[in-house]
Amino acid sequence: MKKFRITPVDGGVCAVDGIYAGGVNAGFKKEGFDLGFIRSENEMDVAYLFTTNRFQAAPIKYVLRKGIKKTNFILANSKNANALTGEEGIKDIDEILGFLSSKINTVNPVMSSTGVIGVRLDKEKIKKGIEKFDFNERNSNKFAKAIMTTDSFEKEISFEVEGDFGRFKIGGVAKGAGMINPAMATMLCFITTDADIPQNEMKEILSEINENTFNAISVDGDTSTNDSVFLMTTRKGSYDKEAFKEALREVMQKLALDIVKDGEGATKAVAFVVTGAKDKKEAKIVGKNFTNSLLVKTALFGEDPNWGRIASTVGASGVECDETKLRISFENVFVYDRGNILFDEETEKKAHEIMKKREFKIYVDLGIGNGAFTAYGCDLSYDYVKINAEYRT
Amino acid sequence: MKKFRITPVDGGVCAVDGIYAGGVNAGFKKEGFDLGFIRSENEMDVAYLFTTNRFQAAPIKYVLRKGIKKTNFILANSKNANALTGEEGIKDIDEILGFLSSKINTVNPVMSSTGVIGVRLDKEKIKKGIEKFDFNERNSNKFAKAIMTTDSFEKEISFEVEGDFGRFKIGGVAKGAGMINPAMATMLCFITTDADIPQNEMKEILSEINENTFNAISVDGDTSTNDSVFLMTTRKGSYDKEAFKEALREVMQKLALDIVKDGEGATKAVAFVVTGAKDKKEAKIVGKNFTNSLLVKTALFGEDPNWGRIASTVGASGVECDETKLRISFENVFVYDRGNILFDEETEKKAHEIMKKREFKIYVDLGIGNGAFTAYGCDLSYDYVKINAEYRT
Repeated sequence: MKKFRITPVDGGVCAVDGIYAGGVNAGFKKEGFDLGFIRSENEMDVAYLFTTNRFQAAPIKYVLRKGIKKTNFILANSKNANALTGEEGIKDIDEILGFLSSKINTVNPVMSSTGVIGVRLDKEKIKKGIEKFDFNERNSNKFAKAIMTTDSFEKEISFEVEGDFGRFKIGGVAKGAGMINPAMATMLCFITTDADIPQNEMKEILSEINENTFNAISVDGDTSTNDSVFLMTTRKGSYDKEAFKEALREVMQKLALDIVKDGEGATKAVAFVVTGAKDKKEAKIVGKNFTNSLLVKTALFGEDPNWGRIASTVGASGVECDETKLRISFENVFVYDRGNILFDEETEKKAHEIMKKREFKIYVDLGIGNGAFTAYGCDLSYDYVKINAEYRT
Repeated sequence: MKKFRITPVDGGVCAVDGIYAGGVNAGFKKEGFDLGFIRSENEMDVAYLFTTNRFQAAPIKYVLRKGIKKTNFILANSKNANALTGEEGIKDIDEILGFLSSKINTVNPVMSSTGVIGVRLDKEKIKKGIEKFDFNERNSNKFAKAIMTTDSFEKEISFEVEGDFGRFKIGGVAKGAGMINPAMATMLCFITTDADIPQNEMKEILSEINENTFNAISVDGDTSTNDSVFLMTTRKGSYDKEAFKEALREVMQKLALDIVKDGEGATKAVAFVVTGAKDKKEAKIVGKNFTNSLLVKTALFGEDPNWGRIASTVGASGVECDETKLRISFENVFVYDRGNILFDEETEKKAHEIMKKREFKIYVDLGIGNGAFTAYGCDLSYDYVKINAEYRT
């Protein structure tokens, strides 16, 4: 039995005492917020995970070069990724953060960006935006809105965790809807907490939870230049490793699934539960291949229980598999069982009914070993094509 | 200077003397041919390449188990892949080919299938179709039509090759429009020739030419269970290795590019010319990632010179790369040159004009080494989604 209780609370990243957040329109979006901040009264310890894309964006290089371990300020913008902008992209950040520091006391401020690749930041617009900030605002939702690109809703969550060990709070905000294929998922995520986590455990725990949350989702198989997850703590609360991991998992799972549900043009969020693979690595390969297969994704959109595409994807994955050991079911409706095709008119109808739902699970057991991984994906609709064919225009 | 001349001739696979081909409607398609044959007066030596999908379809297993090296008959059907059908799928082939042999003299007949995965063949329909065959027909085009699934046009080509060494003919037919991602491309291809190729060179040459033709194309990144290329020779003609390789390349290149042009819903065929990679393997990874990136493919459809997506795809490929060495151009219009963004209003307009074309090239030089590979892909349109969401319905 758990020795702790996790309770949803309001506030997003501002659920944590001493955290402020807000957003303004700096003129990048026609309307709505496009520049936001999260700041803390005192400096916070910070851990981060960044994209595996070799062309890491300027804001990521900036953080890595400075080797930032403590910060009290996150500045984030949408509509421009500041990626592929070279040394000038980094100088732009320096200038912007220098200007910021003339307005408010900052300790190792961090910038985070998302949007179009390969365009220099408009520094003047950002400076004017900074001048509009109300630094005493505690509005996580405005920040969540400010980092949205093609997202259709804000992604926020916060909890209070209590147990024998004491209590802490944790809150997170994320953005992401396209260019989503983990390692990291193409997204930005900011998590605040007051849990008194040992500095040396922060990155380890963040990586561990990330593996089954953000690294388990895919919208389109494209890994962006800007993926970032930040975990920041004020250390004013208590800490219990088990409780913290559980709470962090709740936060990251919720935000990751929100990204899939908000996948560009997506009408469905589907969990591919892969079991029986040789090992976890192979289970993950198969799971991710489901979420990235155009033929699987279009079948989801068509609500067509075309299980042959699922089987074919397993075979194409290069993992150890055997068609006489494979089992496939849509929820509890088995369509293929170790060499036997169970797909008839009745099964097809039942599976089709399941696929009409907004969220459902597809189970694939390889029957080889004990490797398991659940990948989360969405369908591929006309709107995905529309959104991405017209992104810049 | 070449010592030989390659001249286009009519006839497809029947351009070669002693080859017969035809097609009938066996009732799988509402109208049009869905069952076809290629046969030879005398037995032919045969070499083949099959899908890397671990769930190879029954017709492929059949050929591999029999270890067929000579044949005089290919029977091919569309609308049903006979894949994931287990031992029964193989027995079905045995029964069908047994029936065929009661109608005409066959030597190691081969069956080849394409269509929906996971459904048993309707043997009775196929037998009735076989009874309708006119075995003395020499109509390659009917065969080409019989193997089409979502293809919108027949894919056929034939040449006569003459030189000091003598002469030979070569003809090919292919099908494929979706589930196309080489290793093999998801497709069927049948090539006949009378070139007197040494048996031990057939597979080697076929593999070599395949690498830069069928294995260089992608429509949707999905590798099917049925991909097959057959090369068959009657050995009645002459042979010169260089001339034969050149002619085979012409045949396979034409058929591979036809598949990309006919990519499901495709409005454009694009060559991604990757140079300067560490080695050919890395160049191929990058090239194939371009042809499989949803964000690149939707940008092609939108005729949007969003070069950031191209750069990001390079970075996400995991290959050795450096943003200060990378160069990207749409035909001759450079948009990014070793750290310098050359993308302004004028460049964008020029690149956009190039992208309006039905066929064009995008050049990406990594500036690292001498690895080069050209990958051929198409755009992702609303129609791709439509075709694949409604494939079975």
